[in-house]
Amino acid sequence: MRRYASVTFSDVKITGPFWTERLDCVLTRTIPSQHAQLAAHGILDSLKLPKPVPPLRIPRNKHNFTTQIFWDSDVGKWIEAAAYALSHRRDAALEAQIESIIDDLEQAQAPDGYLNCWYQEREPDNRWTNLRDNHELYNAGHLLEGAVAYFHATRRDRLLKVMMRYMDHVAATFGPGPGQKRGYCGHQEIELALVKLFHATGIVKYLDLASYFIDERGAQPHYFDLERAARGEPVGAFIQGTYEYSQSHLPVRQQTKVVGHAVRAMYMYTAMADLAAEHDDAGLKRACETLWDDVTRTRMYVTGGFGPSASNEGFTRDYDLPNDTAYAETCASVAFVFWAARMMNLDLDGRYGDLLERALYNNVLAGLSRDGTQYFYDNKLDSDGTQYRWDWHPCPCCTMNVARLIGSVAGYFYGLAEGEIAVHLYGGATSRLPVAGGWVTLSEVSTYPWSGDIALTLEPEDCVRFTLSLRIPAWCPAATAQINGQAVAMIPDKGYLRITRDWAKGDTVTLVLPMRPSRLYANPAVRQDQGRVALRRGPLVYCAEAVDLEVAPQMLRLPAEADLTDIWCADLLGGIITLTAAARKVDTSLWEGVLYRDHPPDERPSPLMAVPYYIWSNRGSNAMQVWLRE
Amino acid sequence: MRRYASVTFSDVKITGPFWTERLDCVLTRTIPSQHAQLAAHGILDSLKLPKPVPPLRIPRNKHNFTTQIFWDSDVGKWIEAAAYALSHRRDAALEAQIESIIDDLEQAQAPDGYLNCWYQEREPDNRWTNLRDNHELYNAGHLLEGAVAYFHATRRDRLLKVMMRYMDHVAATFGPGPGQKRGYCGHQEIELALVKLFHATGIVKYLDLASYFIDERGAQPHYFDLERAARGEPVGAFIQGTYEYSQSHLPVRQQTKVVGHAVRAMYMYTAMADLAAEHDDAGLKRACETLWDDVTRTRMYVTGGFGPSASNEGFTRDYDLPNDTAYAETCASVAFVFWAARMMNLDLDGRYGDLLERALYNNVLAGLSRDGTQYFYDNKLDSDGTQYRWDWHPCPCCTMNVARLIGSVAGYFYGLAEGEIAVHLYGGATSRLPVAGGWVTLSEVSTYPWSGDIALTLEPEDCVRFTLSLRIPAWCPAATAQINGQAVAMIPDKGYLRITRDWAKGDTVTLVLPMRPSRLYANPAVRQDQGRVALRRGPLVYCAEAVDLEVAPQMLRLPAEADLTDIWCADLLGGIITLTAAARKVDTSLWEGVLYRDHPPDERPSPLMAVPYYIWSNRGSNAMQVWLRE
Repeated sequence: MRRYASVTFSDVKITGPFWTERLDCVLTRTIPSQHAQLAAHGILDSLKLPKPVPPLRIPRNKHNFTTQIFWDSDVGKWIEAAAYALSHRRDAALEAQIESIIDDLEQAQAPDGYLNCWYQEREPDNRWTNLRDNHELYNAGHLLEGAVAYFHATRRDRLLKVMMRYMDHVAATFGPGPGQKRGYCGHQEIELALVKLFHATGIVKYLDLASYFIDERGAQPHYFDLERAARGEPVGAFIQGTYEYSQSHLPVRQQTKVVGHAVRAMYMYTAMADLAAEHDDAGLKRACETLWDDVTRTRMYVTGGFGPSASNEGFTRDYDLPNDTAYAETCASVAFVFWAARMMNLDLDGRYGDLLERALYNNVLAGLSRDGTQYFYDNKLDSDGTQYRWDWHPCPCCTMNVARLIGSVAGYFYGLAEGEIAVHLYGGATSRLPVAGGWVTLSEVSTYPWSGDIALTLEPEDCVRFTLSLRIPAWCPAATAQINGQAVAMIPDKGYLRITRDWAKGDTVTLVLPMRPSRLYANPAVRQDQGRVALRRGPLVYCAEAVDLEVAPQMLRLPAEADLTDIWCADLLGGIITLTAAARKVDTSLWEGVLYRDHPPDERPSPLMAVPYYIWSNRGSNAMQVWLRE
Repeated sequence: MRRYASVTFSDVKITGPFWTERLDCVLTRTIPSQHAQLAAHGILDSLKLPKPVPPLRIPRNKHNFTTQIFWDSDVGKWIEAAAYALSHRRDAALEAQIESIIDDLEQAQAPDGYLNCWYQEREPDNRWTNLRDNHELYNAGHLLEGAVAYFHATRRDRLLKVMMRYMDHVAATFGPGPGQKRGYCGHQEIELALVKLFHATGIVKYLDLASYFIDERGAQPHYFDLERAARGEPVGAFIQGTYEYSQSHLPVRQQTKVVGHAVRAMYMYTAMADLAAEHDDAGLKRACETLWDDVTRTRMYVTGGFGPSASNEGFTRDYDLPNDTAYAETCASVAFVFWAARMMNLDLDGRYGDLLERALYNNVLAGLSRDGTQYFYDNKLDSDGTQYRWDWHPCPCCTMNVARLIGSVAGYFYGLAEGEIAVHLYGGATSRLPVAGGWVTLSEVSTYPWSGDIALTLEPEDCVRFTLSLRIPAWCPAATAQINGQAVAMIPDKGYLRITRDWAKGDTVTLVLPMRPSRLYANPAVRQDQGRVALRRGPLVYCAEAVDLEVAPQMLRLPAEADLTDIWCADLLGGIITLTAAARKVDTSLWEGVLYRDHPPDERPSPLMAVPYYIWSNRGSNAMQVWLRE
């Protein structure tokens, strides 16, 4: 199969206004504030070993579990996000903060390479005794991702070497060989991190270890059963009840339904797609495609959110997509972007980019406040105004996840294959890319997602023949393109307009993706959305916030025949396009003290204004709704 | 104020088909099956003291709490339900079962009168140390209600005497006097039971004890704080977080919002209304009225269910009435009926009877299966088919509650005041009632709630002048009445047609309450019901069940203009009236594999059939909906 490779974040420069604003915010506000929060909550101190063991900062919950057990991962994710920041602009103070953490980690690492500040400090004799619950390899994975990103951004390899020593220990400990444990982590993550380590070092052992973890998962006898028995724990004590929770209920190639904890699932699918590409493994690719179809056809919010249920932080039943109780964890959408990007590399099909874009511009971005210091962990699609952003969380996974994705968004713009450059995302970026034996500088100028007018300039070192593939989003049926002012036939191939020609210095491609406000309807099996409509324009899904309305959005109805108008509002929320329409509000004046009666409420005209979903809850707590009554 | 007294269940004979069927079912199937369940689950054995302490049957939950602690109450409620059965038809075997339980209770009672099988068996030194959580007085209250009912039904007073000894001990233990505990129960119940004991015995001490418990509630310093400190428990350990949970956050007369655990609330309001009547206490009556207005105008399901939230088994916010996650505990509606009946006694106002009837015929009856052996604890108004009835429950409170209410439904038909008989409920009943110094036999014949054609015959011993007050339900704007064939002006006074005249033997009153299928709409502040319609006919609220439809009810839309037809279906579920209409179903044929798209689903004609809500889930698990999309 034809393989594409993403262009690394450090090789693409973001130039467009939309992502420049978000990036600046993350680099200048989010990452420093997160370092302060990690310090304030004792997470940085927890790395300083050996020392007297302090009391728990996060008390054990009813299941005798504390999220403090995965503090290492929070540090790893922060280093990763900070590394992306450094790739945009070096910063000595930030580097000193990272180096100080690396000092602690280097100091903490055991002589045999093992590195887990929880276990080393509190349960030194219990290493690798509860992979099901205790996130040891998950923590390792996030530290590893941080190490790889920091190496890419700075070429400094001290943390990378710490982590290679740790991974050598892990590779010796786990596997099918004699004396090895046939285990794998209850929270997938290390698998995709090991692929990154392989890409960074070329050392095949790490790729093999990732393959082992993926292939061993769900094998019988079940490792978590053996491990439980070894701990002397009764069968019923597993609080999640089912190994579907960690997608270890079946070998991964036999899985056809997206189940369990959403973030675990998405991280695993990401690694599966990585390994399908590395090994040209058609079976693994097919498993990924089956799971992709399942989740995107039956279990995805219109905002690109995943996992409706708080109780398992994950999936329930087909078409079960409640709006007011939606969990739709920020991390799950971030992880979906990772997966989608790998799927684009497996197969240049616009459906991957379309949904990557939907998750990115909607559920993911909604997870971070405009000022970059407040967060949503779960992302409702209907709020009575009682939801609000928080500054930190006992389980701060989402904070660093959104930061590291925005910080590395440049890494999702381009894909490369033999003789081909694929443009997946638009929004203004410049990159110098290797193609057909030479180099070409590709500059894309646009104000996407506000406008679909996209100008690309190609500057090959020499005139060179290659294919430029431009994603034509499925939401845009009226796309047009020109090369040097000459119209190009718009005949996309699986969602990409593929232009093969001899490219010369200064060639320009103009792509016009007309953005009109439009309506979306859900499959009627989604009972919560029946009779309701969502609004979108381009890749952005919109919502109505009470602050912009005469009444709470739940009191509005948007008639099917009402025209939608898009307006650029330069002074609102830093400049956004709003959608407006003549809607109807229920007349509540005759309902005082009446709960039920035999005639419906009257309606009165009332203007609707909708804002992009990603920017909601930046003007205080207020009611919000994505699916408006039609 | 004018006081009314209910006519005791044992003085009214049910004759009409609707309640005869439900009563027969409870008497012949529910009560025996519940005795078998109480035996099978070890609850009857738990009364046999002293004995070696067996392991817990209901393990302690995460809060170190076991519902086993209120097994005494389950026994008390079952005795009460069984006593109502005996009032309809004596049964030696049933009486032997009750007597055997009384043997155990008599044997278990401590020399000082204390009687609590949990504490005596397991924590003999901890009596009265955790009123907040541990239900000691709640258990006592239910045993007391059982004792009073058994006394009414059989005139046997052995259990009554046990409980009087216990109440003498409680009265000595609790109160404002020196050396007494100024406590009250964390789960209200004993207050209303003590009023019953006062009514049965005439001993004022028991009424005073009820008044003390009600008046002391919520006083500062808060008893639960003092008690917690005495136990050495930290402040934050109270899992419910707020004393609103037990309505002890404020003195009861200062409470204006219905909050917290719904059953606790309703039992308390019942006692408050009782005491307002006993003491002609206008302040307490006003508090009841304020709370009544609050709950019925903002926090009541259309089915007469209360308390939307599972987490506190109770109330949340105004107009927060989700359908698919509705808790609406059967017990809460049962207790609301108790309260409403007391409000009718305080003030002859049809709004009390209207909502008593709504709760009784809908949420309450839904709690028991047609065959009388299966239950709903919580009562959804929208089900995707995954809810089902259960045979028993770790907390079986609802099972005996629905049985004791149906068993005593006759006690809610009539109210008596000086020179007045008030008829609150219809459905076929006969009673010999004291009025104006003589006795009158009142026979009411109807097939209510299927028909509103009601024939009353009066047989006074002598011609006598009194007022006959007939409730004219608010759902019926077209009621008519005749006396001996002569039309009576239909001018109801607060929902009652009050006819004062000299009544002679054989006088007949014909009341016609035309029942037409009609539509109900919710206040638009109930966001879950916007754009939706509920159906009712007479006092019955209807629902659509998938088993009667071409599609799940969530796939239907009932256009505003569709006519509703009522049809007597003799062969369906023992004979019910169904409602039918020409509805529309969404066409799902073009949605295969499509989750979101830019045009709404098409519609096709599809017949709607709706059945009374109370009878849903008697034909296997299937999807159900009360609020249909309009």
